[in-house]
Amino acid sequence: MQPKPNIVDLPVYQPGKPVEDVKRELGLTEVIKLASNENPFGCSPKAKEAITRELENMSIYPDGAAVELTAALAKQHGVNPDQIIFGAGSDEVILMIARAFLVPGDETIMADQTFPQYKHNAQIENAVSIEVPLKEGTHDLAAMLDRVTDKTKVIWVCNPNNPTGTIVTEDELESFLSSVPQNVLVVLDEAYCEYVEDPSYPDGLKLLRKYPNVVLLRTFSKIYGLASLRIGYGIGRPDVIRSINQVREPFNTSRFAQAAALAAINDESFLTECRRANKEGLQYLDGEFRQMGLQAFPAYGNFIMVDVRRPALEVFDALLRRGIIVRAGHKGYPAHIRITVGSREQNEKVVAALKAVLQEIAIKV
Amino acid sequence: MQPKPNIVDLPVYQPGKPVEDVKRELGLTEVIKLASNENPFGCSPKAKEAITRELENMSIYPDGAAVELTAALAKQHGVNPDQIIFGAGSDEVILMIARAFLVPGDETIMADQTFPQYKHNAQIENAVSIEVPLKEGTHDLAAMLDRVTDKTKVIWVCNPNNPTGTIVTEDELESFLSSVPQNVLVVLDEAYCEYVEDPSYPDGLKLLRKYPNVVLLRTFSKIYGLASLRIGYGIGRPDVIRSINQVREPFNTSRFAQAAALAAINDESFLTECRRANKEGLQYLDGEFRQMGLQAFPAYGNFIMVDVRRPALEVFDALLRRGIIVRAGHKGYPAHIRITVGSREQNEKVVAALKAVLQEIAIKV
Repeated sequence: MQPKPNIVDLPVYQPGKPVEDVKRELGLTEVIKLASNENPFGCSPKAKEAITRELENMSIYPDGAAVELTAALAKQHGVNPDQIIFGAGSDEVILMIARAFLVPGDETIMADQTFPQYKHNAQIENAVSIEVPLKEGTHDLAAMLDRVTDKTKVIWVCNPNNPTGTIVTEDELESFLSSVPQNVLVVLDEAYCEYVEDPSYPDGLKLLRKYPNVVLLRTFSKIYGLASLRIGYGIGRPDVIRSINQVREPFNTSRFAQAAALAAINDESFLTECRRANKEGLQYLDGEFRQMGLQAFPAYGNFIMVDVRRPALEVFDALLRRGIIVRAGHKGYPAHIRITVGSREQNEKVVAALKAVLQEIAIKV
Repeated sequence: MQPKPNIVDLPVYQPGKPVEDVKRELGLTEVIKLASNENPFGCSPKAKEAITRELENMSIYPDGAAVELTAALAKQHGVNPDQIIFGAGSDEVILMIARAFLVPGDETIMADQTFPQYKHNAQIENAVSIEVPLKEGTHDLAAMLDRVTDKTKVIWVCNPNNPTGTIVTEDELESFLSSVPQNVLVVLDEAYCEYVEDPSYPDGLKLLRKYPNVVLLRTFSKIYGLASLRIGYGIGRPDVIRSINQVREPFNTSRFAQAAALAAINDESFLTECRRANKEGLQYLDGEFRQMGLQAFPAYGNFIMVDVRRPALEVFDALLRRGIIVRAGHKGYPAHIRITVGSREQNEKVVAALKAVLQEIAIKV
């Protein structure tokens, strides 16, 4: 049983420590997880009601094509239903794009620090990942363009970028798209787009109308607060979506996920409040970091990446012992930690803990 | 944007008609769907309770490794936790096996009428599917063995076979496994195993202990009645499971699915009752078919495939107009329909409808 040679050395996913384990191992009664960019305010109550209504249908397969949800989102975004495809999280749309478009030896371009599933899936398809260094934490689109060859199949642009939180602007992206050959698929991963209020942020749907080689990725795991349910989607031209659909599993999203997502898109007030609280949290965290003499990347999503001027893994451990889980260990960023914006109380706790930790650990970087 | 050449002609999945659509289009007030081998008795009430308990965690990512559920199933099956891998339905385990093991040009062997996802996934990986004709509706293991070459990577044995419902026995399978080269993975898809009471049915776990190249597939979509939630699993040797795990998406099963499955495996009385009612239903249907002069394949799952001696698609349409959805159109079986065993009332209705339909349509086959 020889697996594909190209997956032999692929890292097996190591799940993060569950909150309960951290509590037990460290003898803590309260642990705050600000490591997975989840919504600290939960989800819309309408989504919970939708779950309850579906309890009687648990034994019945979901609508594989998610017809009702597709129609609702098509209307919301002003596209046709055949331009939308669902995945079990946008993760699965990434998988499907890789599986539909990449063959061994193809090249695929991405930032060197970005969402890891682009590279992971490219490796499984035995494609060559061209990782282009970020410039001040931001996608270097000019450098990415320079790496396009006749072997390039897919380019990934995560906007806001995970983990740095930065954005590329509409002008920058438009200039990039106008130069990328139209036979190269450009995936704009907009998992955090609903948080962004900056007027320079690209209107992905507008770009899609102009550039047929664009696919947008959206998710219900972030501002919609449905991470546990696994549902996200892609928007693209019908021929692109058709190709992705050809590798979709017949029943890839659950009945609960479809019902909750449909309810969630109709609760604009929940989104508005989450957006407001997140903005307030970002401003608070950024202000506090400045007072501590720390610099963060400009943050547009629901997380912020800050240079703690100390070994990030030591700071991570020290915060963990104080009951706060953040994210560290990003290659090329040995002194940065990524913190999810929490509730006001959570943000205040992470700031207080970070202040104490910075006193304990000497500046080294 | 050229997709992989080998997926260009892949059929896009055509979802079955929703019950609501059939009602509206045909002006029917009641429609019975006996087409997807769902559990007519729903699921364990314990699974519903588990969903309700998880409502407060909708915004939190699931445990990607499903640690608690893995531990419970490992204990139940007498295997180690590193021998189990979960998928969004066993469908996704099939996808992961194909993605981890098949490279272009590899050969993979399956029956000519069996669960279509084996071939579908092999096509996506550009592997060559060797489809071996069933013999009287049953896997022809000797003929499958004859087709093994040094290019063979994976063999799929669906037991009970979907759509025919037949089984291969432990003796037959053991003889087969002892001859298959140990570097060829043999996937035993046991989606319906919990329904089978025949003593000759293989003990997959026993075979796995003896043959390291065996992987078992199980699902919560059938007797457990959790089809809407998308959860199934594979059991194999740790090295095989590790390879499959390398291509698994980090969060491929939902929090609700894991919680419901964990609750469901602890409700033995629900399973016992479903098994009893299914057996009664199979005996009833088979007896009625005989009285109508029709012959069915020996059925071991929760469905039965019967030769209606008339064009199956005409019978399908006629039943549909009477508000009963079955399955027809299986290549090589132009006169067979597949009927899911329903509740007693549903079974009586399908028998009455079929009797009427057989009067309308002349024997042609």
